[in-house]
Amino acid sequence: MILTDSLLDFFIETRKQSETICKPLEIEDYVVQPIVDVSPPKWHLGHTTWFFEEFILKPHAEGYKIFHEDFSFVFNSYYETVGERVVRANRGNLSRPSVEKVYEYRNYVTENIKKLFSDGQSKELNDLLEIGIHHEKQHQELLLTDIKYILGNNPLLPKYSDTFEDHPSETHEQEWISMDEGIYEIGHDSEGFYYDNELGRHKVYLQPYQISNKLVTNKEFLKFLDDGGYQRFDLWHAEGWDWVNQNKIACPLYWHLIDDEWHHYTAKGLQRIPMEAPVTHISYYEAFAYAQWKGLRLPTEFEWEAAQQFFPWGKRWEWTESAYLPYPGYQKADGALGEYNGKFMVNQKVLRGGSVATPEKHTRHSYRNFFHPHLRWQFTGLRLVK
Amino acid sequence: MILTDSLLDFFIETRKQSETICKPLEIEDYVVQPIVDVSPPKWHLGHTTWFFEEFILKPHAEGYKIFHEDFSFVFNSYYETVGERVVRANRGNLSRPSVEKVYEYRNYVTENIKKLFSDGQSKELNDLLEIGIHHEKQHQELLLTDIKYILGNNPLLPKYSDTFEDHPSETHEQEWISMDEGIYEIGHDSEGFYYDNELGRHKVYLQPYQISNKLVTNKEFLKFLDDGGYQRFDLWHAEGWDWVNQNKIACPLYWHLIDDEWHHYTAKGLQRIPMEAPVTHISYYEAFAYAQWKGLRLPTEFEWEAAQQFFPWGKRWEWTESAYLPYPGYQKADGALGEYNGKFMVNQKVLRGGSVATPEKHTRHSYRNFFHPHLRWQFTGLRLVK
Amino acid sequence: MILTDSLLDFFIETRKQSETICKPLEIEDYVVQPIVDVSPPKWHLGHTTWFFEEFILKPHAEGYKIFHEDFSFVFNSYYETVGERVVRANRGNLSRPSVEKVYEYRNYVTENIKKLFSDGQSKELNDLLEIGIHHEKQHQELLLTDIKYILGNNPLLPKYSDTFEDHPSETHEQEWISMDEGIYEIGHDSEGFYYDNELGRHKVYLQPYQISNKLVTNKEFLKFLDDGGYQRFDLWHAEGWDWVNQNKIACPLYWHLIDDEWHHYTAKGLQRIPMEAPVTHISYYEAFAYAQWKGLRLPTEFEWEAAQQFFPWGKRWEWTESAYLPYPGYQKADGALGEYNGKFMVNQKVLRGGSVATPEKHTRHSYRNFFHPHLRWQFTGLRLVK
Amino acid sequence: MILTDSLLDFFIETRKQSETICKPLEIEDYVVQPIVDVSPPKWHLGHTTWFFEEFILKPHAEGYKIFHEDFSFVFNSYYETVGERVVRANRGNLSRPSVEKVYEYRNYVTENIKKLFSDGQSKELNDLLEIGIHHEKQHQELLLTDIKYILGNNPLLPKYSDTFEDHPSETHEQEWISMDEGIYEIGHDSEGFYYDNELGRHKVYLQPYQISNKLVTNKEFLKFLDDGGYQRFDLWHAEGWDWVNQNKIACPLYWHLIDDEWHHYTAKGLQRIPMEAPVTHISYYEAFAYAQWKGLRLPTEFEWEAAQQFFPWGKRWEWTESAYLPYPGYQKADGALGEYNGKFMVNQKVLRGGSVATPEKHTRHSYRNFFHPHLRWQFTGLRLVK
Repeated sequence: MILTDSLLDFFIETRKQSETICKPLEIEDYVVQPIVDVSPPKWHLGHTTWFFEEFILKPHAEGYKIFHEDFSFVFNSYYETVGERVVRANRGNLSRPSVEKVYEYRNYVTENIKKLFSDGQSKELNDLLEIGIHHEKQHQELLLTDIKYILGNNPLLPKYSDTFEDHPSETHEQEWISMDEGIYEIGHDSEGFYYDNELGRHKVYLQPYQISNKLVTNKEFLKFLDDGGYQRFDLWHAEGWDWVNQNKIACPLYWHLIDDEWHHYTAKGLQRIPMEAPVTHISYYEAFAYAQWKGLRLPTEFEWEAAQQFFPWGKRWEWTESAYLPYPGYQKADGALGEYNGKFMVNQKVLRGGSVATPEKHTRHSYRNFFHPHLRWQFTGLRLVK
Repeated sequence: MILTDSLLDFFIETRKQSETICKPLEIEDYVVQPIVDVSPPKWHLGHTTWFFEEFILKPHAEGYKIFHEDFSFVFNSYYETVGERVVRANRGNLSRPSVEKVYEYRNYVTENIKKLFSDGQSKELNDLLEIGIHHEKQHQELLLTDIKYILGNNPLLPKYSDTFEDHPSETHEQEWISMDEGIYEIGHDSEGFYYDNELGRHKVYLQPYQISNKLVTNKEFLKFLDDGGYQRFDLWHAEGWDWVNQNKIACPLYWHLIDDEWHHYTAKGLQRIPMEAPVTHISYYEAFAYAQWKGLRLPTEFEWEAAQQFFPWGKRWEWTESAYLPYPGYQKADGALGEYNGKFMVNQKVLRGGSVATPEKHTRHSYRNFFHPHLRWQFTGLRLVK
Repeated sequence: MILTDSLLDFFIETRKQSETICKPLEIEDYVVQPIVDVSPPKWHLGHTTWFFEEFILKPHAEGYKIFHEDFSFVFNSYYETVGERVVRANRGNLSRPSVEKVYEYRNYVTENIKKLFSDGQSKELNDLLEIGIHHEKQHQELLLTDIKYILGNNPLLPKYSDTFEDHPSETHEQEWISMDEGIYEIGHDSEGFYYDNELGRHKVYLQPYQISNKLVTNKEFLKFLDDGGYQRFDLWHAEGWDWVNQNKIACPLYWHLIDDEWHHYTAKGLQRIPMEAPVTHISYYEAFAYAQWKGLRLPTEFEWEAAQQFFPWGKRWEWTESAYLPYPGYQKADGALGEYNGKFMVNQKVLRGGSVATPEKHTRHSYRNFFHPHLRWQFTGLRLVK
Repeated sequence: MILTDSLLDFFIETRKQSETICKPLEIEDYVVQPIVDVSPPKWHLGHTTWFFEEFILKPHAEGYKIFHEDFSFVFNSYYETVGERVVRANRGNLSRPSVEKVYEYRNYVTENIKKLFSDGQSKELNDLLEIGIHHEKQHQELLLTDIKYILGNNPLLPKYSDTFEDHPSETHEQEWISMDEGIYEIGHDSEGFYYDNELGRHKVYLQPYQISNKLVTNKEFLKFLDDGGYQRFDLWHAEGWDWVNQNKIACPLYWHLIDDEWHHYTAKGLQRIPMEAPVTHISYYEAFAYAQWKGLRLPTEFEWEAAQQFFPWGKRWEWTESAYLPYPGYQKADGALGEYNGKFMVNQKVLRGGSVATPEKHTRHSYRNFFHPHLRWQFTGLRLVK
């Protein structure tokens, strides 16, 4: 038996944090799904709970009685191993289980986990618990961005919270950090938690490059916009250009031009755009087009990781030029948990860093996030490389 | 000034009835929209309220202060005259206004209407009020069918109410009523309320026909199903056959085969199918194919109306063979109310009768309902003609 | 044995006529299918031939050897009874059989039919032959309109023929023909050929009406266009308005505004629009909107048929207000030929009259053509009723 | 002036080769486009010609008279710089210009190029000519695969040619080539022709790996199929699994199970599958799933290039695990030619090698082809890595 006091504290604190995030919501806000990429908050609360029930309590807690036999169908996200599930696009069609019932489910599972781990557990179970905690932290990030999408696309533009600052400015001077040509080591290297996609640690050879110590700001991005950047096909990928035209994209998500003044929707409601804050809610296509317009480029994820100790990061997920691919020697886990990362390694772009929505202790310099190139409801930004 | 006591009572009773229908709901049930044809209950409550505000209070109540300036955008259904509106498919994406706020809105508008009409009003305003009341009654029917759809497509199959009987049986003997060849008068002919599409009253010439005094039952429809009716292309319209195959239709909506026993979802939850009750939740395509299989046909709306005094009706909306078209001399109303009926007179089929969801005083023998031929979330059934 | 000399002549003349229509084409023009509603000319030539092979030669010509065993799969249009077939949208994907091979097929089948009927045949076979001839005539009309679509949507706008006049003017004065209220007989009433959808002859009761002796001209329609008719939602059906906006419709098909002068593509190439010719290539939605704009309406098919002896017709297929529905007592034929008409009797509008593309002897006053309301590649026009 | 005799010979030979490829076709085969990825042969012949006219003759040949002013609209592929063009999906809707006219166009442009280059030209023009030649060679590959698709999806399965062998077997023994960890140089390094995407030459660090000297054969792939590989979700990317299910994929393209014997369509018509030949016409998703099933993986493009001198290649385009991304220091060309490669560098996979359809002198070990991961009409195969 391994003592797990601090892990259990970490668990309890994480469970509480998800609920804290949802505190400002009306019950109605828990239910809707305006686009397929966004999940109802209720679903996040249930799904993160189901994860503990499915992978820890059901197989490992003797005599555990599942809370409701249909919840596996409702709250499974994409684990084919585990069985049938509600199609993603239908999550917002489910009025039941009610929010109250989902909170009951949370409490029930939380209590059962506490009981199971109260006297310590095997390394295997501790590892599973740790994955479950990090899984929930990952969903906390999505909870925040999904809530922003739900409220920010409502015609009433309701505010989420007066205390959550989602557009902090960067005030340090812009400088270029020079990096030498040579071999760098990439991938997870410490004692802490990691996902399988951060392994194995390996060498890459980088050509000399210079990387900015600062993210591109709203002010800078506005120049691109004013210069007709959204109308110049030569700056875009062919698929990006199609995306711009089919969706009539002409500015970042949440931007509104009101009486000739640029505003954006924030957690605090509609506000004037802070010019010194990093631009955000842009797709990879927009990040790339901006870099083209500047005559510069995005970093690869390797360039980013090699240089990350020389600049501050964590305010924005940063688009990289890298496609999301396995590292050399990548092995996916056995069973359902093997579906966590590997099966998404095609047609997606790597993001590095973290964002204002990222929970503390959840990010690290080897962390690899990934999204399709057209998505922009995350707090995405960009950093340039020469 | 015309005294409007009874009209005002009718108004108050109608307003109350909409809320009674929603009483069994959880807040979450008010919000979702599983398919584009179904609207969230919250939306129905708001939209019927907006109708009174937009067409009566705003133009006619001196000093009236609108409840919320964005509600016209949120709760307009399709009136192009009135301005921009939320796209129909997005109604279920709106978590706000909250249910509580919508009830506030209802009370506010109800009180203002009561004030405006308390001392009587002009004929013009009384007529508008009557339209608004009937409009709300029409939405009560949709409220019930939309609630059924929302709950009946939830994997938990929650019950709506123990007191609402949505599948009453018909127990009288089946007989054929013979109707003579000749001229019949069709259209609205009494003092009561009517929609513009029931005018003008006109003559039609009917060939001799026999019409059943009974609706087709579940038992009879099951024979069609057991005989492979859903697999025989020769029974279907070409578009019906495409619909069957693309949507893999093999039984009426809400039917489930469980352990070789046919069940269906009802207001009281999942139940065994009552064989003597009229079949329901079928599309026009299915009604037509059933009639083909029997070697019979559906009545035209004229045949139905000419014979309706000779049989009981009102349990099911009955599909007719008639396309929804204007009567001779049809004139649509001026302004926004002119959008009520006329602009839908293409590609739809007429239904006659009424259903278990139809409010009292809302149906009459000249009433013409209409839906696209593939829809089946209404309580639709069929009656045969030789 | 019934003598069939004149029928056989009619057959031979009809077969020849299809080929005459195709004479001006390049081989490449026989192959393409720019939209799903249009079929490649090669397909029409093959399909009309297959009809004779499938329904006459295969079942009735002793010792007949089918030309090619895969041709039934290639040239069946929609007869489910007969078996699998190329999906309609894929007709333009087939480069083989070659045009040359299709002509061989035509000759082979024509010769075999001649042999089979040379000494006369039973009434049953004569009837089948007559249906086959009329079927081919119907396709001749489609051949012409499909060829026009293929050439008229090619960026080079090649001319079809200098001798085919597809926009003759109407020069007589416009007058209103008054028709009395009363009972009229409708449906096929003569000795000649008819389709099952023209039966049974029956009485209808018409209210008094006045019908124009002239089709609406380009000049008149241009006024509607200049008056912003395509931008005024109140003139359109809801579905028509969606169609206008989704397809950015702003004028009839084939119209081009060149240097502020309206031109249209015709069989003779691009030409200035003849103002006194009937407007054509409009959808039912456009016909309806025009009538609304004039404060008038379209005739029903019954009004049209009752009055047709009082005005010239045959230059344009005329949209009516009537939905395509079975007449009282309608019986579809047995077997595959029963799929000819009945299964299309939903969601379509009746057209009456004929057009410049209609072969001689193919139209009659009881003839009912039908198309979906958004289609406009036929020579469609409109006549007004008060 | 630089002498360009051999370049001009190369040009003439290349022009002739495109026409030789089309020699077995019927005129009808030149016209159709069964799927959006496939272009009509006529279009390839015209487009490669237009490339010389647009980029060489129009700007550089004094007094040159363009062949037809609309051909730029018809034959531009995707060069936004050059102006409007026929939407890709509509290429198969164009019956004109006729095949004969396209050959006239080819001769006209070929003769004008010969005249322009007969006495030598500047390095700039020679470079443009070389690009044009390689561009045409690239289209020859597509010509062959597009022709195969056009004929191989025709229900008559016509043969293309008795002399083109598109499924040669590999008979050498399978061995694993061991490659050392270390730095390798990647990218174009010789005097010969290259595309901008092969530059700049740069170092990569590779971990130790073993690469097969042989492509996976039909026999081996059949084992995957027989083992239920197409039904096991755990072997597939999530997007690959969706693709399999939505398109009901159960074997490579062109495979047919006839009387329990696997056949495939080849240039010589339908044949039994040669078991020792490399599997082909598979998507990246299938290649990946096969590798997963074997417990192995695909090479990266760097591993492939580093090892390519140790194994034979050129029979199949080989899917790699690498996403199509710019090399370090990549610079796209100025003007329209800059649209050649760079704008496609997202959501595509790199293929290395060449195929039976690849013209001689057109491939080289630094050549990078790229396709979306679901495509399989190219002669695609796979090689494994441990």
